[in-house]
Amino acid sequence: METTRASTAKGAADNQGTDNGAESLVKTLLACGVDTCFANPGTSEMHFVAALDRIPGMRCVLGLFEGVVTGAADGYARMADKPAATLLHCGPGLANGLANLHNARRANTPVVNIVGDQATYHRPLDAPLTADTEGWARPVSVWTRTAQRADQVGADAAAAVQAARTAPGGVATLILPSDVCWEPGGRVAEPLPDIPAPRVSPDAIDAAARILRSGQPTLLVLAGAALRQTPLADAHRIAAATDARLITPMSNARVTRGRGLLAIERIPYVGDAARARLAGIRHVILIGAPTPVTFFAYPGKSARPYPEDAQIHVLARPEQDLADALARLADAVGAATAPPAPTVAQAAVTPAKGAVTSEAVAQTLTALLPEHAVVIEESISFGRAFYPGTVHAAPHDWLQLTGGAIGEGLPLAVGAAVAVPDRRVIALQADGSGMYTVQSLWTMARERLDVTVVVLANRKYAILLGELAGVGANPGKTALDMLDIGNPDLDWVSIAAGMGVEGARAADMETFADLFATANRRKGPFLIELVI
Amino acid sequence: METTRASTAKGAADNQGTDNGAESLVKTLLACGVDTCFANPGTSEMHFVAALDRIPGMRCVLGLFEGVVTGAADGYARMADKPAATLLHCGPGLANGLANLHNARRANTPVVNIVGDQATYHRPLDAPLTADTEGWARPVSVWTRTAQRADQVGADAAAAVQAARTAPGGVATLILPSDVCWEPGGRVAEPLPDIPAPRVSPDAIDAAARILRSGQPTLLVLAGAALRQTPLADAHRIAAATDARLITPMSNARVTRGRGLLAIERIPYVGDAARARLAGIRHVILIGAPTPVTFFAYPGKSARPYPEDAQIHVLARPEQDLADALARLADAVGAATAPPAPTVAQAAVTPAKGAVTSEAVAQTLTALLPEHAVVIEESISFGRAFYPGTVHAAPHDWLQLTGGAIGEGLPLAVGAAVAVPDRRVIALQADGSGMYTVQSLWTMARERLDVTVVVLANRKYAILLGELAGVGANPGKTALDMLDIGNPDLDWVSIAAGMGVEGARAADMETFADLFATANRRKGPFLIELVI
Repeated sequence: METTRASTAKGAADNQGTDNGAESLVKTLLACGVDTCFANPGTSEMHFVAALDRIPGMRCVLGLFEGVVTGAADGYARMADKPAATLLHCGPGLANGLANLHNARRANTPVVNIVGDQATYHRPLDAPLTADTEGWARPVSVWTRTAQRADQVGADAAAAVQAARTAPGGVATLILPSDVCWEPGGRVAEPLPDIPAPRVSPDAIDAAARILRSGQPTLLVLAGAALRQTPLADAHRIAAATDARLITPMSNARVTRGRGLLAIERIPYVGDAARARLAGIRHVILIGAPTPVTFFAYPGKSARPYPEDAQIHVLARPEQDLADALARLADAVGAATAPPAPTVAQAAVTPAKGAVTSEAVAQTLTALLPEHAVVIEESISFGRAFYPGTVHAAPHDWLQLTGGAIGEGLPLAVGAAVAVPDRRVIALQADGSGMYTVQSLWTMARERLDVTVVVLANRKYAILLGELAGVGANPGKTALDMLDIGNPDLDWVSIAAGMGVEGARAADMETFADLFATANRRKGPFLIELVI
Repeated sequence: METTRASTAKGAADNQGTDNGAESLVKTLLACGVDTCFANPGTSEMHFVAALDRIPGMRCVLGLFEGVVTGAADGYARMADKPAATLLHCGPGLANGLANLHNARRANTPVVNIVGDQATYHRPLDAPLTADTEGWARPVSVWTRTAQRADQVGADAAAAVQAARTAPGGVATLILPSDVCWEPGGRVAEPLPDIPAPRVSPDAIDAAARILRSGQPTLLVLAGAALRQTPLADAHRIAAATDARLITPMSNARVTRGRGLLAIERIPYVGDAARARLAGIRHVILIGAPTPVTFFAYPGKSARPYPEDAQIHVLARPEQDLADALARLADAVGAATAPPAPTVAQAAVTPAKGAVTSEAVAQTLTALLPEHAVVIEESISFGRAFYPGTVHAAPHDWLQLTGGAIGEGLPLAVGAAVAVPDRRVIALQADGSGMYTVQSLWTMARERLDVTVVVLANRKYAILLGELAGVGANPGKTALDMLDIGNPDLDWVSIAAGMGVEGARAADMETFADLFATANRRKGPFLIELVI
């Protein structure tokens, strides 16, 4: 998270008391460094839209569905390290965006979530679109406020930005009644200061160092801001000095990695595999990570992926300064410089040929990934080899949906591409989850975003077929029909064309490699339907 | 709402105490007459899915997004007069379905809304997908319960069905932790009795009759169950005897109408038009309708579509017996038989030619609408002439989204087509709102539903352009870009083809008439993109 913002509060200087509420809000957002708005507006937001027209500086990106908007705001902030605004329409518009706000919450992503709503005096009349906007927002938000007056909405916006940016970051929801927008007397607010992330106590460093020096098998679980290269290098110093193992949760907001960079593995998704991987661990030290837990419970299985007798220790909570904690811990254990990243002969990595497998896709990604790409992964079953298999790809950032609410891959790609327009975005997207927010393709076309979408088309909810088998049932037609998304097969090339995105189909690795290399050299989006 | 159900509780008879929770739940639903399940399941629902496999009798319809599922459940119950079940996955899956549950709430539609969730003992561990499922459900639900034990979940299901069916009907949400499904000891519950809608008091009838006999201009506002032909005929008897005027809210769950049937107009959407239409009214009598209110507030405008000095009276609340109230009121005012429906020379109505206008589409619908069609209207700007202009079309039911949460037209069509497979469903669908739940097309193809989708493609959020003009702004590029959904134009024929639905484009009324007539004779779905 950057710690300074435009100190010339341009909007504030312009404020002559002639702004309406909406205008003071837009100027305050700009003064606070929020210059991108992902939007799906409605009637109650027209004064806000009109204000965006009159005040230059806000990039507005339209989504045809709110799940696109909120997922894009998540992806944007992960790459821009500052929040975007959303613009949603009333309770139901917010509801359509909740699933990806849930993901953003789990990613600790800063989002200034603006929800236009009924006028303050209209809400009690219970018009058809009136809903419990605040009640729906609160579970995904670190901060929720309904603006009440035009002369305060600027200050509300500044508070929302501060709340969103306060470590570890979160969704700040500002509900905006239409009369608060249209009433005169808006006052532009100055940005509020960033609140520094608290440092962990010396005692916490000492306690962790003691454990590490004990020689007992110890696991460091890193998440959030600990997954950038500097703190990760400190973690590797610690590991080299103490034989501790490093790992991340199974889903992460952003991991910087690739050839020449230090790598970190993830806790496997499947509980049995995770328990096998973590067998023998005696101590688990959390650095910005929650206590590891399996996604779901299963009859007779532990909900924990680590041994029952392992002890859990918290070095740093998510809202603390994780990089500082790792640097100090490295010093405390007397760690030397980090080991060099493992190398691989680049010539040995060539695009895969033949049948489409998870490993083959990873190999081709390793060979052909553009430098500094942003990779979005939403492919939990077929994609199992993607992350481990791309450790030697060109340096990149790897983004996942973090809350398990499927349908965020394509929106994340939209937001990331807006945030870092000089980097190629690669969306590795399962077909079932891709359909949730398929409208993202249209925004990619409209904004000419440099996104290569790879749809992994297995034409089923593959993850669920495995789960159904786990139930012990011998599945019959009813069950299979509910997990099969063929009949009819989705034609992704046709769907994409209908939204203005060119695409092509591949059913073998040679065709895929050709299409992937070509797509990445284009300007604008391209979709590859990879039949698997 | 039918008042009897299968009294042979088939499931109950079969219950030998060997069911798990999921099996007892499915058997109870069947015993309660719930035999259709719109589903988008996830891991936590696999035991439910397995139970559906083992127990015959439940038709399962898969949606590729939860908004399709919940909107389809709404459309189904409106036409079947009994609830379907949904099957959603955890809090975020529910969230994706909330907007159309909001519409269902406003329609008073019975829905048995089943949300699978984390195991009871897993929820406190806050795994990534864990969310505030109950908190999100409550604002749209008349009844919310989280099942706690396998031996009680059957009784929970019976209570949910009863709650959903109790007049005027509503969403009953049953949250289903996975361990409640897989644990043994499930007990199938007997259906609970229907609770009759209470009759209005004699005093209420007398009061309304006195107002009607006063000779002062009086408006009867009818909604819900009052919009079927028998109560509507009683309302027309009253109107004929007393000069009262009849009207419905601007959006209704279901109106039975058409050639040879009695008609009823709607309160106009635009406040000024509504106030002009209702000028001079002194008394407003509500029969199952809320006090009329404009959709939104506007600066300096009244939020009420009726004169400020009009008095509001409640003859019957939505949960009371509306048909009984109208019949008794008709008798109380000494009304004779209802007047005959107005007639029109059928030969005079031929399909329109030339340019595409709202009136021309209404004319073609009047000429070509199949007998007993179900018409879904989600086209608030271009569609202004559709309802008034089709009063002489063949008899049909007219369904609208009732809560203003756009994106329900195509899901309603799915549900209606499943409910009444012998009737053609015509979805009059604006393009902007159609994109919200475009995944509905795939379910139409998969289930070979007899739906003709007419996409009214104006390539903009036309309603919002009008609203923006109302703000008084001279819109600039930023604002116009946020209301323009061209650039790129959506190619609906290509999108539909990608989901297995054949389609064609029309840009004049002759082509539209040809396509519309042909489409309605087909088996299965067809999409017409009508460029307007």
